[in-house]
Amino acid sequence: MTSLRFNVLSDVAGFLSSLPTADANSVEAARARQMQLTKPPGSLGRLEDLAIFMAGWQGCERPEINAAQALVFAGNHGVCAQGVNPFPQEVTAQMVANFQHGGAAINQLCSANGADLSVIALELETPTADFTRGPAMTEAECLEALTRGADAVDSSADVLVLGEMGIGNSTISAALCAALFGGSASDWVGPGTGSDDAGIALKARVVSDGMTRHGVGTPMEILAALGGREQAALCGAVLQARAYGIPVILDGFICTAAVAPLFATEPAFLDHCLVAHMSTEPGHQRLLEALGKDPILSLGMRLGEGSGAAVALGVLRSALACHGGMATFAEAGVSGA
Amino acid sequence: MTSLRFNVLSDVAGFLSSLPTADANSVEAARARQMQLTKPPGSLGRLEDLAIFMAGWQGCERPEINAAQALVFAGNHGVCAQGVNPFPQEVTAQMVANFQHGGAAINQLCSANGADLSVIALELETPTADFTRGPAMTEAECLEALTRGADAVDSSADVLVLGEMGIGNSTISAALCAALFGGSASDWVGPGTGSDDAGIALKARVVSDGMTRHGVGTPMEILAALGGREQAALCGAVLQARAYGIPVILDGFICTAAVAPLFATEPAFLDHCLVAHMSTEPGHQRLLEALGKDPILSLGMRLGEGSGAAVALGVLRSALACHGGMATFAEAGVSGA
Repeated sequence: MTSLRFNVLSDVAGFLSSLPTADANSVEAARARQMQLTKPPGSLGRLEDLAIFMAGWQGCERPEINAAQALVFAGNHGVCAQGVNPFPQEVTAQMVANFQHGGAAINQLCSANGADLSVIALELETPTADFTRGPAMTEAECLEALTRGADAVDSSADVLVLGEMGIGNSTISAALCAALFGGSASDWVGPGTGSDDAGIALKARVVSDGMTRHGVGTPMEILAALGGREQAALCGAVLQARAYGIPVILDGFICTAAVAPLFATEPAFLDHCLVAHMSTEPGHQRLLEALGKDPILSLGMRLGEGSGAAVALGVLRSALACHGGMATFAEAGVSGA
Repeated sequence: MTSLRFNVLSDVAGFLSSLPTADANSVEAARARQMQLTKPPGSLGRLEDLAIFMAGWQGCERPEINAAQALVFAGNHGVCAQGVNPFPQEVTAQMVANFQHGGAAINQLCSANGADLSVIALELETPTADFTRGPAMTEAECLEALTRGADAVDSSADVLVLGEMGIGNSTISAALCAALFGGSASDWVGPGTGSDDAGIALKARVVSDGMTRHGVGTPMEILAALGGREQAALCGAVLQARAYGIPVILDGFICTAAVAPLFATEPAFLDHCLVAHMSTEPGHQRLLEALGKDPILSLGMRLGEGSGAAVALGVLRSALACHGGMATFAEAGVSGA
């Protein structure tokens, strides 16, 4: 088990060589087991793929989820000064309090799907800088948030559910995507928590400003210049989970965009990550195509908080229940095809 | 609470006037509650719709699932004499034994998602007649199966998960759909448990034969002539659940096709039914369009047994957990938009 340390952003690319990959023997054993279970081969569809994926990362034929950790990172964003969000910025701290008191969607969904939730508020009283004026974070601030994210991961978890909260962070996400994957600002912005057409047009202008100012650099430099603390923390958590060999369930548009700098640094950084659901935020489909990820669910959700990831955890539990608990044709005395 | 009695098939259409409808006041109260919960309105997508749907059928603002019943009906089909299935017909009974011993997918999925499973085997040793030769069932046989289905429903269940098992029943389903909704046999047949191209072509010829012989009549007469005992039992269970005011989760292609005769009799018969998932069986999308039903999941599943419905039950539990457990803006002291 490796505890990652983030000293300079340019180190991140070099981590890959020291990180574990999926265990090919366990993948093969799980695939062979699926062929013997009492069902037509392939008939459980995505549930079979999920069980085989988990086998690879847990390094065993029959993976289990005994401990599921959910982490929600919260941050505030200087770009809110541009008026990009219909909710006031105080809502970030208010919602963190709501998480802590058990009243938010993610609390109910973690309880319903068996995840242990922790909420990490990242200096909410000190928003990042407005990226239309200067870099959102210094390198030191970005490294600090990466470390906070990494340190939050429990090495004993069997799976990690990730989410975020931060008023203004659909604008942050659009800026990251546009800078990392190209396209115009308007290709990536959307209504977020509820912007109208004028609000979306404003978000596109703000994102364009940010790209003009900070649209070049390494992906991790772009994360510092355009991202926020919760985005950096999510990157840190994804890297640390990988170091521990823990598979990850990413939530929707904002959570997936947050870790896009890792993908842009090196696509294999996200090999241990599932994407929970297709958000209705219009940039998400484009982003998932860029990442080559197929979401598990498509429920018209657009809340964030890790809400879609917690629902997908339930589907993952169903997948492992079948894989681990079903009888084989031989055990059950059922004739094959 | 009404226990339905099936004396003649032509009675079925007349049941509608005595069956409950969703409670409009509870729907309105649940919708108003969703607007007050600490999230942007609509941001939980389908989870909000599911909670409001359940409120209507349970007749309360905050519906709950304390008891979930799962019923799997199994039957055998004379049309298997035409060689339409790659698995031998004995597999139906072998799989019923597997269900009873806890070794099938549906056992694991009911356990993972909290449903109490019962399996009802319907005269497996006496398959229905081969519909290319004569009617699959007499009216008396069809009525008997309807009654078996109705009698299996537990009046105290909060939700009913439905599934089926029966070698040959993807052919039965295609025949029912073609006769009820039109189109050619090849519009509705597919690989089922694993037919190759030649097998699918054979299924289409067999379905055409059945339509030529039995393609006219009332929908319930078509059920008797082309369907099987598990299809009739599923119709009986859906009607009985409606009489008890219990919402239903239908599984995939075969389960949905089984109750299509009710829809064709009167579309409102299925108002209390959700469709769990989009099967990969190609006829399912066409069938869902005909029924105007939007599946909850699309996981590439094609097993039957109620497997997709049991996974969808987990999503439904998540929906109700949010609806019932979240704080309102006022309770949490969170600022609205």
